[in-house]
Amino acid sequence: MAFQGKKLINKPDDVVTEFIEGLVETYPGLQYLDGFPKVKVVLRADVSGATYDKVAIISGGGSGHEPAHAGFVGEGMLTAAICGDVFASPPVDSILAGIRAVTGPMGCLLIVKNYTGDRLNFGLAAEQAKSEGYKVETVIVGDDCALPPPRGIAGRRGLAGTVLVHKVAGAAAAAGLSLLDVATEAKHVADMIGTMGVALSVCTLPGQVTSDRLGPGKMELGLGIHGEPGAAVADLQPVDVIVSHVLKQILSPETNYVPITRGNRVVLMVNGLGATPMMELMIATGKAVPKLQLEHGLAVDRVYTGSFMTSLDMAGFSITIMKSDQAVLQRLDAATKAPCWPIGADGSHPPAKIPVPIPPPALATKNGETFGGPLQLNQQGLILEAAIEAAAKAVINLKDALNEWDSKVGDGDCGSTMFRGATAVLEDIKCYPLNDAAETVNEIGSSIRRVMGGTSGIIYTIFCKAAYTKLKSSSLDDITPQKWAEALEASIAAISKYGGATAGYRTLLDALIPASEVLRKRLDAGEIPTTAFIQSSEAASAGAEATKNMQALAGRSSYVFGELLAAVPDPGAMAAAAWYKAAAMAVRDKYLHT
Amino acid sequence: MAFQGKKLINKPDDVVTEFIEGLVETYPGLQYLDGFPKVKVVLRADVSGATYDKVAIISGGGSGHEPAHAGFVGEGMLTAAICGDVFASPPVDSILAGIRAVTGPMGCLLIVKNYTGDRLNFGLAAEQAKSEGYKVETVIVGDDCALPPPRGIAGRRGLAGTVLVHKVAGAAAAAGLSLLDVATEAKHVADMIGTMGVALSVCTLPGQVTSDRLGPGKMELGLGIHGEPGAAVADLQPVDVIVSHVLKQILSPETNYVPITRGNRVVLMVNGLGATPMMELMIATGKAVPKLQLEHGLAVDRVYTGSFMTSLDMAGFSITIMKSDQAVLQRLDAATKAPCWPIGADGSHPPAKIPVPIPPPALATKNGETFGGPLQLNQQGLILEAAIEAAAKAVINLKDALNEWDSKVGDGDCGSTMFRGATAVLEDIKCYPLNDAAETVNEIGSSIRRVMGGTSGIIYTIFCKAAYTKLKSSSLDDITPQKWAEALEASIAAISKYGGATAGYRTLLDALIPASEVLRKRLDAGEIPTTAFIQSSEAASAGAEATKNMQALAGRSSYVFGELLAAVPDPGAMAAAAWYKAAAMAVRDKYLHT
Repeated sequence: MAFQGKKLINKPDDVVTEFIEGLVETYPGLQYLDGFPKVKVVLRADVSGATYDKVAIISGGGSGHEPAHAGFVGEGMLTAAICGDVFASPPVDSILAGIRAVTGPMGCLLIVKNYTGDRLNFGLAAEQAKSEGYKVETVIVGDDCALPPPRGIAGRRGLAGTVLVHKVAGAAAAAGLSLLDVATEAKHVADMIGTMGVALSVCTLPGQVTSDRLGPGKMELGLGIHGEPGAAVADLQPVDVIVSHVLKQILSPETNYVPITRGNRVVLMVNGLGATPMMELMIATGKAVPKLQLEHGLAVDRVYTGSFMTSLDMAGFSITIMKSDQAVLQRLDAATKAPCWPIGADGSHPPAKIPVPIPPPALATKNGETFGGPLQLNQQGLILEAAIEAAAKAVINLKDALNEWDSKVGDGDCGSTMFRGATAVLEDIKCYPLNDAAETVNEIGSSIRRVMGGTSGIIYTIFCKAAYTKLKSSSLDDITPQKWAEALEASIAAISKYGGATAGYRTLLDALIPASEVLRKRLDAGEIPTTAFIQSSEAASAGAEATKNMQALAGRSSYVFGELLAAVPDPGAMAAAAWYKAAAMAVRDKYLHT
Repeated sequence: MAFQGKKLINKPDDVVTEFIEGLVETYPGLQYLDGFPKVKVVLRADVSGATYDKVAIISGGGSGHEPAHAGFVGEGMLTAAICGDVFASPPVDSILAGIRAVTGPMGCLLIVKNYTGDRLNFGLAAEQAKSEGYKVETVIVGDDCALPPPRGIAGRRGLAGTVLVHKVAGAAAAAGLSLLDVATEAKHVADMIGTMGVALSVCTLPGQVTSDRLGPGKMELGLGIHGEPGAAVADLQPVDVIVSHVLKQILSPETNYVPITRGNRVVLMVNGLGATPMMELMIATGKAVPKLQLEHGLAVDRVYTGSFMTSLDMAGFSITIMKSDQAVLQRLDAATKAPCWPIGADGSHPPAKIPVPIPPPALATKNGETFGGPLQLNQQGLILEAAIEAAAKAVINLKDALNEWDSKVGDGDCGSTMFRGATAVLEDIKCYPLNDAAETVNEIGSSIRRVMGGTSGIIYTIFCKAAYTKLKSSSLDDITPQKWAEALEASIAAISKYGGATAGYRTLLDALIPASEVLRKRLDAGEIPTTAFIQSSEAASAGAEATKNMQALAGRSSYVFGELLAAVPDPGAMAAAAWYKAAAMAVRDKYLHT
């Protein structure tokens, strides 16, 4: 399975300098020292060592851990970040350049992850800077809890917990503390942090072949952040199980790496290793918090979830637990302009979930079960009843024809789908409040939504809902023909808006739009309403027939070649024309007989 | 190459609800509606629809695009996010619940990506909400520039540019604008945005097998964010080439998707698709900005780089270009508490790079070339000269023995490495300012650093630098024996601090620490300094010999079994003892003869 990892880069040797160029384009508050390719130092644009009146906080190390460290440069966190090549400690001259650029009379604190190269290079730079008259303190972070207690000076690598030390030190410096006090705080919190990682994949160094160390279905526990092998390989488990294991390891009383015991308060960081989506990190967080609370007896004061200290494109995460107290929380919550420190994670937790709002009471009772229909229908109610029944029956009668047309241009179920809706309407009609036209139209929508799936179901529901809102706005008991015309227009507008089609797209709108236009025109011209309605329905039929010559622009038919469509009308348009015409005729007949 | 993608999840069906649980644990400003698993709505914890006096901004859609949309909920951006299942539009009831939860008298704006399911479900919810008396407006975003102009209502999918619409609408709402004005602004910016994506891998749906569509060395151009195939597959290119292609496509005058022409001002967003590390995104940004400026004649006002609208675990990015003006920038720069909107990207750009600070002038001239050594050595200078020459020669003479010991316990080059350093010191000594002991020790460090690589080189440089700083702090011209003792202590402390070793770790400290202790003790007891120095050097030799019985705890020897080490002294300790003893004897001899 060894293969050349795919990367969105140019020359492998240029990845760090090009990263920095993109970083400063993104964040105007950051600058870099003009010393590429050797000196790769990102610093606050608003700080000059000569005049800086706070303790400068400087960190860095090998690159490949982005956003660490350069993404944490900003007021209230790091003053400068020294970038080495990928996974390689930065050279002494680079570190020195960073120290000189940002360190003022208050001095600087170097925060160094516990790797020999970093310790020595930062160490020599510190000594050189001291000899130049700078005040320099160093804190070394080794938060790894994956390996058994080390025999010597190796082990306890610096991992994602280092970012928490950056934040505490940065906030202490911003508060104006002296170098000694900032260093003391940083050292204190460094001793309160434990981290352990889990990887699903091995990272690929730019320009190199990916290791085939980790097979399918396997994960690595207790990995480092430089591609070094983990402490153990195991079968991939649900993340719930992984989180339990990692928390136990970090908090193990045997290694006693972090002085955290039941009843303590802690901060949690779930850190992505580079290629892990936020969804998965959040899932881990969602499991870690209750486990810390219930299984380990700890109060969780703050949670940071994101990608903070990565390992190039490694899939996986690390979990960091830090003992917290009011002083630490104050530092963590302090404002910072560092672009990659998470915002919105401070402050106390309100209840996480709130009840789903209940629908307005008036509507809650307006369903089929409780309505029961009016006892005595008035004239409008009788006409509405006749129109609905006629329309539904027309659709039922057209079932086979619709299916046949649809089988040629779509998936062949238009008739069956429409049949389900029409049948439901016929069943439910006895419960409709037929004397209230607006509410009845709304109930038709509910019947349709209950039984008709797919796009056509939702489109007809929208049709009814838009008409309902328009009809309901009438102050009159009886709905005027003008109002019905407006309701039809509102329905068409809603379908067009949400469905995205309009006239000529070979949809039901090719029946409804001509119908609406004729209805409006005839009513405006003073035509008898029932006649205008009939004329309108004829326009609907003509419009539906005309879809035979249309290219499909919406729905499934848009994937069918034009010639195949030529002889077939759009079934949706034919169905709309059919129920519309049946309703128009029923209304006319009812008026003639009453 | 089809395989089960590895994911850090539990049950595939639970990924969205578990994501939300982790999200609200991380961000106390967010809550969710208690309607799992059907209603998955994240909302601002500080907003209740009944009392909310701003326009509510609501977005959402299928999940799998995290942080979109829930990560953009917060004051100044979204009021609520409606989450569907992975890549599935949320149901109408879920959207309605969200609308009801956060919409007050000012109404709500729904921001919907242009997919049929989202349009219809949000559309029906909007119509239902209107019928309940809510004021609702909808804006549909279709920013895709990958496909040729669509024949119908498909195409122009909603992609990462939607996040910019969220921000503008959210800021407009926060500013107190009416629903109509907020909707007008949102629609205006939606028309100003173009996006195109590039993928290196196909995303894996939770619990499903990964498609083998995209082979090794290939990339997909113009992809969607739901795993749908891209517009074209091509050989993977350097990201520089990819960025050029994508920018040309977005800004193409043929498709004319976005009304951006030379001389315009724009905003750039480089968006990771889920598994792309920040390093690669920043590299793309670093290339995109100058191309927009130089090749397309555009001014780049703002740059947003990060993962905003992902596609599960897809590797790749999309680029979004939005036409900008002062009004838009004001909205983009407005403060927001949405946790995943990038901070620090606002404001104008200072010069991106500043000069590397030059070393302090006094030191700049103190290199071997310009010193040239003192013309006339005083007594201290003569003694120092003799000591340095003797020490260097002792190391040179020990070369083969050191290499032999090291070949048994390390990599066999200790003698050669030390030889290089000693030879350089002998060469450079004529340029040392020998009458100034502090500066001379510093120059020894420079000589060593120039030629000795590896850990030992840097450790000896630190040794000299720490001694230099201590010696320099003396106000006397002549360095007292006490001061030399203090310098040795400072050097040991520095090596121990940065190297991490201490007595008993089988390192050079096992020679130096006994030497330092004896020197201090004898001087304090009033011993003649040259004698104290000799006694001290005997302690160094004894200490070095004693390393034969030590377990290695640092460096390469720590990987060698104890029994193999038993007969071999630590070569570093032996070297230290040798030069120390030679120096002590030279000092004594010099004193006797002067």
